[in-house]
Amino acid sequence: MVKNAEALRKLIENGLKEIPLSEEPVNLYEPIKYILEIGGKRLRPLLTMMSYQLFNDDASKIINQALAVEVFHNFTIMHDDIMDKAPLRRSSKTVHTKWNTNIAILSGDVMMVKAYELINTDKGNLYNILKAFNKCAVEVCEGQQYDMDFESRDDVSEAQYIKMITLKTAVLLGFSLQLGALLADHEEEADNLYNVGLNMGIGFQLMDDYLDAFGDPDKFGKQVGGDIIAGKKTYLTIKAYQLANITQIESLNSVYQKKSKLSDIEKVNVVKGIYSDLDIESIIKSKMREYFDEAFKHLWEVDAPLNRKSILRNYFEVLVGREH
Amino acid sequence: MVKNAEALRKLIENGLKEIPLSEEPVNLYEPIKYILEIGGKRLRPLLTMMSYQLFNDDASKIINQALAVEVFHNFTIMHDDIMDKAPLRRSSKTVHTKWNTNIAILSGDVMMVKAYELINTDKGNLYNILKAFNKCAVEVCEGQQYDMDFESRDDVSEAQYIKMITLKTAVLLGFSLQLGALLADHEEEADNLYNVGLNMGIGFQLMDDYLDAFGDPDKFGKQVGGDIIAGKKTYLTIKAYQLANITQIESLNSVYQKKSKLSDIEKVNVVKGIYSDLDIESIIKSKMREYFDEAFKHLWEVDAPLNRKSILRNYFEVLVGREH
Repeated sequence: MVKNAEALRKLIENGLKEIPLSEEPVNLYEPIKYILEIGGKRLRPLLTMMSYQLFNDDASKIINQALAVEVFHNFTIMHDDIMDKAPLRRSSKTVHTKWNTNIAILSGDVMMVKAYELINTDKGNLYNILKAFNKCAVEVCEGQQYDMDFESRDDVSEAQYIKMITLKTAVLLGFSLQLGALLADHEEEADNLYNVGLNMGIGFQLMDDYLDAFGDPDKFGKQVGGDIIAGKKTYLTIKAYQLANITQIESLNSVYQKKSKLSDIEKVNVVKGIYSDLDIESIIKSKMREYFDEAFKHLWEVDAPLNRKSILRNYFEVLVGREH
Repeated sequence: MVKNAEALRKLIENGLKEIPLSEEPVNLYEPIKYILEIGGKRLRPLLTMMSYQLFNDDASKIINQALAVEVFHNFTIMHDDIMDKAPLRRSSKTVHTKWNTNIAILSGDVMMVKAYELINTDKGNLYNILKAFNKCAVEVCEGQQYDMDFESRDDVSEAQYIKMITLKTAVLLGFSLQLGALLADHEEEADNLYNVGLNMGIGFQLMDDYLDAFGDPDKFGKQVGGDIIAGKKTYLTIKAYQLANITQIESLNSVYQKKSKLSDIEKVNVVKGIYSDLDIESIIKSKMREYFDEAFKHLWEVDAPLNRKSILRNYFEVLVGREH
């Protein structure tokens, strides 16, 4: 029987606990158990299972491959957190903080191998599955490298930014959905499903940028303007610089220059004032909508029963926070 | 036609130059080209091709899979060098020294994916090849973790040390030979070939330990006693502590305690004196011989034409420096 998101999530949480991991060496495997336990939405394996369910009833058959995507995602988190010197992840200490950098490097490495172990099945289309997974994995690394490169650049264009977030986060959502179709032996639908995930992923990342400046602090659960205070370049800053007049550029520079004299509150007020003057909120909302619309269009084109597609569509509608 | 080691090495060197790597992002791909160019014996891909040649003529058919093993090996080097804080590798700057740690982490990650790309073929036994490769890759990580764990321990037993070097270096030699058999569709010979590589690998690592203390400095190309000066635990120190009387243990401690007052030359003299008194040289030589004999025994048992096996046997004989 086709399962809803909640039932699938339970399968995933149980599956994550049962991934075979050795006891020894303790310093290699404890961090893996730890990072897999600190949670998350489990979005990616859910997508794989929902995609599989478009064509087949029993998604529990492909639980290992769905877990592979989640394990891979957590490998990238473990290594990214080292590179970003992040002390916390989902309110828990990051692995390199709780243990040390060497351990986070090596546990991450072994997680990547574990992802390949989980995805390895003796199905006939293993070659194509791996080809798609390898492509995605390379692109995720490329995205992280662009993200790091962009930190020391102030000439990043809108197109370059979209390319970076596409590689860093969207391709893995694309692959997660593509994988479900490949496992269900519906290769002909894999491209459309990939594009659903890809466009959703870009939209979600833009939404992250949007919520940082315009989100409801009660619902958002983070400090509003965190990106502004951290001096992080996002779609909003790139767009603002693109549209700003000379006075506004000077104001933006007063916030984003390395040794800004402004307080955190002043920074947020200056930047949000400019966002308001330039109507950046409408611009990013319409950009997000473009990507979400594109995703829904591709989902519409997938050749699968409507009642099955509606599970995936409803799930996305909740995530994008609108009704269709 | 069956090729000799030199002809195979040329294929490998050319193949390494032709691995498809993107130009961008530069900071991701330049370090990969760099580490693959600074050389090495190319032992592992040679083993894969020689193993394949036991059963098939044209080893150039499996060049990609042979390169996969070399790329994987260089991924482990790139990450190990970060963890070991090594400034040099084969007389060249290590990647994390020439660029930085973040770049070495991420380039290493993408190299691991590249290894999976290179090994991915649409052959029927892909599942088994990947299963073996994944097992090997996990074990290599485990070996590196044990190696790091052992640095802060002074109670490492001989068995634990052998286990560590087996995982860290020998299993990859085992896999390299096993892979050749799997690619040649001679799965029934894969175990014997794996054991050839495994035992050779343990023997080679012991030989490294041996040469550090007893090697001819002219031929060895490294400072004699480097491990002693660096305070590195090797088979020699473990064996010496195992056999030493109380006076000898005190002498060893005077070298290996954290704040030793001895000069480098004194350290080497003290330790080599004890090695001599305890006849550690004979002990390690006989241990090496055991592993090499076991390797040759397994090679003997491989069901392949003698003239083909002799290429592999001759190659090993040169490496182990003895005649059979």
